[in-house]
This record gives sequence, C-alpha cells and structure tokens, in this order.
Amino acid sequence: MSKVAILGFGVVGSGVAEVLKQNGPHIDEKVHSPVELKYILDVRDFPDSPFAPLIIHDFSIIEQDPEIDIVVETIGGAKIAREFTRRALTAGKSVVTSNKELVAACGYELMELAREHGVSYLYEASVGGGIPIIRPLKQCLAANEITEICGILNGTTNYILTRMIRAGLSFDAALKEAQQNGYAEADPTADVEGHDACRKICILASLAFGIHIYPEQVPTQGIRGVSLADVAYADSCGRKIKLLGRAIRSTDGKIRAYVAPHLVNGEDPLAGVEDVFNAITVRGNAIGDVMFYGRGAGKLPTASAVVADVMDAARNKDRPKYLDWGPGGENVTLSPEDVISPWYVRAESPAEALRSALGEVTVLARAGAPAGEAAVLTGAMTGRELETRLSRISVHAAFRVLED
Amino acid sequence: MSKVAILGFGVVGSGVAEVLKQNGPHIDEKVHSPVELKYILDVRDFPDSPFAPLIIHDFSIIEQDPEIDIVVETIGGAKIAREFTRRALTAGKSVVTSNKELVAACGYELMELAREHGVSYLYEASVGGGIPIIRPLKQCLAANEITEICGILNGTTNYILTRMIRAGLSFDAALKEAQQNGYAEADPTADVEGHDACRKICILASLAFGIHIYPEQVPTQGIRGVSLADVAYADSCGRKIKLLGRAIRSTDGKIRAYVAPHLVNGEDPLAGVEDVFNAITVRGNAIGDVMFYGRGAGKLPTASAVVADVMDAARNKDRPKYLDWGPGGENVTLSPEDVISPWYVRAESPAEALRSALGEVTVLARAGAPAGEAAVLTGAMTGRELETRLSRISVHAAFRVLED
Repeated sequence: MSKVAILGFGVVGSGVAEVLKQNGPHIDEKVHSPVELKYILDVRDFPDSPFAPLIIHDFSIIEQDPEIDIVVETIGGAKIAREFTRRALTAGKSVVTSNKELVAACGYELMELAREHGVSYLYEASVGGGIPIIRPLKQCLAANEITEICGILNGTTNYILTRMIRAGLSFDAALKEAQQNGYAEADPTADVEGHDACRKICILASLAFGIHIYPEQVPTQGIRGVSLADVAYADSCGRKIKLLGRAIRSTDGKIRAYVAPHLVNGEDPLAGVEDVFNAITVRGNAIGDVMFYGRGAGKLPTASAVVADVMDAARNKDRPKYLDWGPGGENVTLSPEDVISPWYVRAESPAEALRSALGEVTVLARAGAPAGEAAVLTGAMTGRELETRLSRISVHAAFRVLED
Repeated sequence: MSKVAILGFGVVGSGVAEVLKQNGPHIDEKVHSPVELKYILDVRDFPDSPFAPLIIHDFSIIEQDPEIDIVVETIGGAKIAREFTRRALTAGKSVVTSNKELVAACGYELMELAREHGVSYLYEASVGGGIPIIRPLKQCLAANEITEICGILNGTTNYILTRMIRAGLSFDAALKEAQQNGYAEADPTADVEGHDACRKICILASLAFGIHIYPEQVPTQGIRGVSLADVAYADSCGRKIKLLGRAIRSTDGKIRAYVAPHLVNGEDPLAGVEDVFNAITVRGNAIGDVMFYGRGAGKLPTASAVVADVMDAARNKDRPKYLDWGPGGENVTLSPEDVISPWYVRAESPAEALRSALGEVTVLARAGAPAGEAAVLTGAMTGRELETRLSRISVHAAFRVLED
C-alpha cells in the first residue's frame, strides 16, 4: 500500500487526482499493491470538488504522517515548492514533480538530497508533458553517447508560430487566439520569451550529459522577433520557423545550449510538428536520430506522466530510482555563439550589400516586400562571425537554419 | 562485473560487439561495474575479425560457464534461437534479444521461464530497432489505459512506398532499388508480405494489453497490391499510402489487430515518416497520442537497443526486470473486419456503379487513368460491409483510410 499527497490543486494537481481515481484499479493492478490518495494541499478550499474531503492547508501534516510515501509537487515556481520538496525528501518521502522551473534550477541539489535519504525524486512530467522522454533518455539510450538534443519544447509558442504560418495571423493576433483557447496564459512571458523552453532544454541536457546545466548558462531568445515577413521568406525556401531548444556536446565534453527561433527544412520531421505538440530529437552515436512526439502540455497528458512516476515510486519503495546527474559549474558550458550553421537574415538593405557583407548567399523573395528590404540564406558560420559581418547593416531578423 | 555471450555474429550480433567495445568506458560507468564480452557463438569462424578470439561453436560452453550472466540472442528465427534461449534462461542467465519472430511466437513461454529462474528476458530491440518503445510503453505510459497502437513498423516497405510516392517507381523497381541499397533482403517476403510488421504489432499489442497476441491472430496484408495508380489517387486527395500495423482494444477488452496498407492524411505525423524510418503511435486515455520515431532497423541502432538491455540486465542482476504479459488464447482477439473506417476503392467500374454500391462517395481523379477505371473514398463502414457491397464489382484495390 502506498499513500500519496498532492501539493497544489491546480490544473496538473487536479489532473493527477482524476487520473489516480479514474484509472485506480488499473494502477493498483500494475503496481501490485493499492495506491491511495490521502491528502491534497492547497491554500484554497474546493467545497464543490469530489476531492474536497482530502483538502488540507498545513504541509506539516503531510510531512509528519508516516503513512505518506509519495508526495506529488505540482505547485510550480522554485520557492515554496523547493522548501516543501526538501522537507518531504528529508522526511523520507519520494517526490514526483511536473515543476520544470524547480528541476532546472535545483535538480542537482534535490536529487542529492533524495539520494541521502534513500528516496526518489522523479520528474518525467517536467518535460514534454505526457511524452515519455526522461526514462528513454536515461535507460533506453543508455548505450549511446548522446551528442545532441534538439526539440520543440513549448506548445504555446509552437501554436502561435503555426497560426502565423497557416492562417497568416500576426504574432499579436496569434497570441491573443492562443490566450482565448487556453494555450497561453494571461502573462505569456515565460512561454513567449523562451524561458519555459530554456528550463526544459536544461533538464534534458543535464540528464543526457550528466552535469547540471543552469538556465543562466543557456542564452534564450523567444519568438517576439518573428514576423509574418520572416514566415513568408521561410516558406519561399521550403522552410518553417520553429522555436528550438538545443544542447550540443562538443568533443571536449563541454556543452553549448541555447533557445532560439530556427528555419527548419519542410522535410525535417520537426517541421511537421504543429499546434501545441512538442517533439524532442535525440542524437546518439549508435542510434542516429530518434524523435519523441506528443502533446507537450495539458492537464491529462501531464498528469498521466506524473502518475506513471508515482507508480514507479510505489513499485520501487525499497529501491529508489535515481534519474540524476552530477553538479554543474561555470566551466561546463561554452557559448553557443560558436556553433556553426547557415543563417537566415532579413535586413533594411539592398541584397547586394548583404552579399558583399556575407559572401555567397541565396536571395529570397516574398510577395509584397517593401522596397529596400532583402532577405538571404547564408553559408555556414558562427554567430560571432555573422555579427561582425553584419555590423554595418540594419538587421531586422537573423535566425539560424537547422541543418539536416 | 557482468560477462556477456553473444549468440549469432551476423549484422546485429556484430553491431552489439562493436557498441560494447566502442562505448565500453561509458557503459561501465553507467552500469557502475564492468561489462565484458566473453564469447561469441557462431557456426562460422571470423579469422579477420578483431573479435576472432572470442568466437566459439559450442553453446554448452556458454550454458555451463557460471561467469556468464547475460546472453544476447541475435540468431533470429524461432527454432534454434528458442532452444538456446530456453537453455540459457534455465541456466539462470538473463537473455536479451532482437529476435521479433521468437518474441512474437514464444514471448509468453519464455517470459514465464525467465520468471521461474529469477532472470530477465528483454527485447527492446525487437521492435523499432533503436527506437525506445518497449520500456516507454510499459513504464512511462503505465498510468494510461492504452486503447490503440498504430505504426509504420517495417522500414523496407516504407522505403519502397516512399520511392513509389516520391520517384514514381513501380513496386518492382522500388523493391529492386531497396535490395541494391541493402534495405531489402534477397528474399523480401517477410517484409513485403507484412509478416515482419505483423510480428512487431503482436509484440506491442501483447505488452500494451497484457495478453499474448499471436501472429496467426493478426490478418496480414502486405504491399504487393499497391500500385502507382493507388499512389496517384491517394495523392489527389492529400493522402499517402503507408503499411500500418494496428491493434485496437475494444471496451470488452478484446483486441482487433491487423496489418494492411492505409491511406494516411498528409497532415498526420505518420504521413511524414519516410524511407526506412519507423514510427509508432500509442493512444492512451489520459495522454492522447504519443509518437516514437526513428530508424527502425540497421546495425548500430538495433545494437544500441540490445546494449541498453544488456546494461539494464547488468544493473539489475539481483532484481530481474519483467517486461512481460499474460497468456493468450483463441478468445482474446476479434476479427479486424469489424473495425469501422472509410475506405479507398479502385475498381474496373464506372464511378456511378461504385456510388450506387457504396452510397455517398468522393470520386477521385488521376492523370492518365484508363477508361473504365474509377476510384473513390467511401463513408465509414466495416470490412465485411464493404465486401458485401462490392460483391458485383471488379475491385483492383481496397485500402482503409486512417481517420484522424
């Protein structure tokens, strides 16, 4: 018998309660022992919820209840969630989370604490919603040296870009539509500015490469700078604009990670990932490229990933699972500016001036382009080189082109 | 320390030896203990191979060597492979395999035997080459009631169909090209007739639904009946022809599984899976659709999946992993003829005759269609109903349309 407490009865927390209830017999059977939800911690009451009798407001009840084996943290943020996670682990309870901000910021610290106390800290739901990615990365790809992870990690921005590409909506109109459909929050900053994708690539890179990569080490550019003009130019050369999180391991073991919009070839599987879907490509030295695809967010997909972790913790009570990584540090990352790739550049400039600044380029065209605007695809070069070469050009947009 | 023996030094077996050697330090570090290849069993000698000193010809040396913990079976087929697997498991050795024929035919029997002897029988590499799918199905999707699995499970046929679609090659020309490129065997029957895909959907369905589904229970149609005319008609309505393996769980727990060519909507992620790539879509009641994509075959991808299983067995020596399922039986499956879907029908018939036989249809057109030929998309109906309605029509091809 395992007893569970949920911290935070928001979208994901209530989804976890529902999945535990709805799939209860199925879960008990698979775990070979009952899994019972005992408490739900929230500051609010939920008098109309079927789960109302479980709601409590004092974390120490959970902390001090020896019956509770597993704590589900779906509070979000890195303050109170961190405190409660530390206290739960210290009290010998396994913690399962969907909180990418906390795992990206404090994963190493919390995994160490879990190890000290012989319990698990599991976070499958923190990346890719319901897409199984954390365990496949750790277990199934174990035989590979992973060299790169690249993915569409944020559903909100992918929805906005899809609507810009497919329906010709402006960024602002697409954002508004995303908000109306519940795909974007009232304050969309974390999504639109790329912070959410940044946290996720940090988690994936930390796990794949075994060293904690912190969000501060990952230069992050969101999609506010993507215009319909860029969408049209990309289309003219058979490409789509996607916000990618990437982490590349160099031969010396250092990691270059960043988040930025890219032009992706229409034939690339990532180009076909639309709306709120996510996809994560993992490149290994033996396996080649493998892609994981599915709904990257949403109440039930995310909740099902949390519940799978709960089941894992329940099954392995006496033998905690460690999906952990080593400490990070200042010297584990290198600037992604040194990554070499072709670039897309749109500028207030004659095409000839771009050609003389950038060398051999492919000039792009779009209907309705204003006089004086030009857009090109360049040869492969680093970000630094591009910047130097463009120093005298008035640049509207410069995005990397993802190479096949 | 774990010592390993490989049975069969063919493509996959030699790949396993290479990955174990090439990624050796990385593997030892991840397992926290050395993993050493001790024997390779084959009927042949390989005097020029760097692994020549490990080659032996007598299985009983492996069987009787108490140092051997893990046996890798990459012989293929269900005869000698079954005997050696039984003997290895009985001798208390975990067995790791890439042999889909054996797992599909005898999985339940061998998993039971492994359980009896407290060892693991692992088969990640039997489906999807290097794509992690077995563990994600079992572990990460544990919280879901899985309702359907659908996938492009055979790289050879997908390559042939891709070449027919993209380059306008006939089936025979595309097959020949696949053979020249090493993507199809000299005797392509197992691939082209769908038997390989059938074995894989059996394994996936058995694991997902917990009951052994045998190949004999899965009606299987290959791609020999797909013509360039069908490819052109599919294209005319924005669809692509793909060979799919499907397993659908009905509400009474019975399984309908089959392998057949389908028309897939161009927007469906499965439509974008080209060449020798595989993709497997899993539908769960909480997670929605999740897709796993990658190279479905090939020496190193498959070998890396085998090695991941070897590492798992090495790490869990004292606590074997059971990725198993229950017994099958005659009454666990239902005929897939009852699955309802729209159909694509091409016939020697006026379109009007098809309409009067099939009810409301969408008539398709293609350039160069001979007089007297018609092709249509029907409304949703069972295979039985379609057959009845078409009893007086001279049908060239009838394929299901995969619904979104």
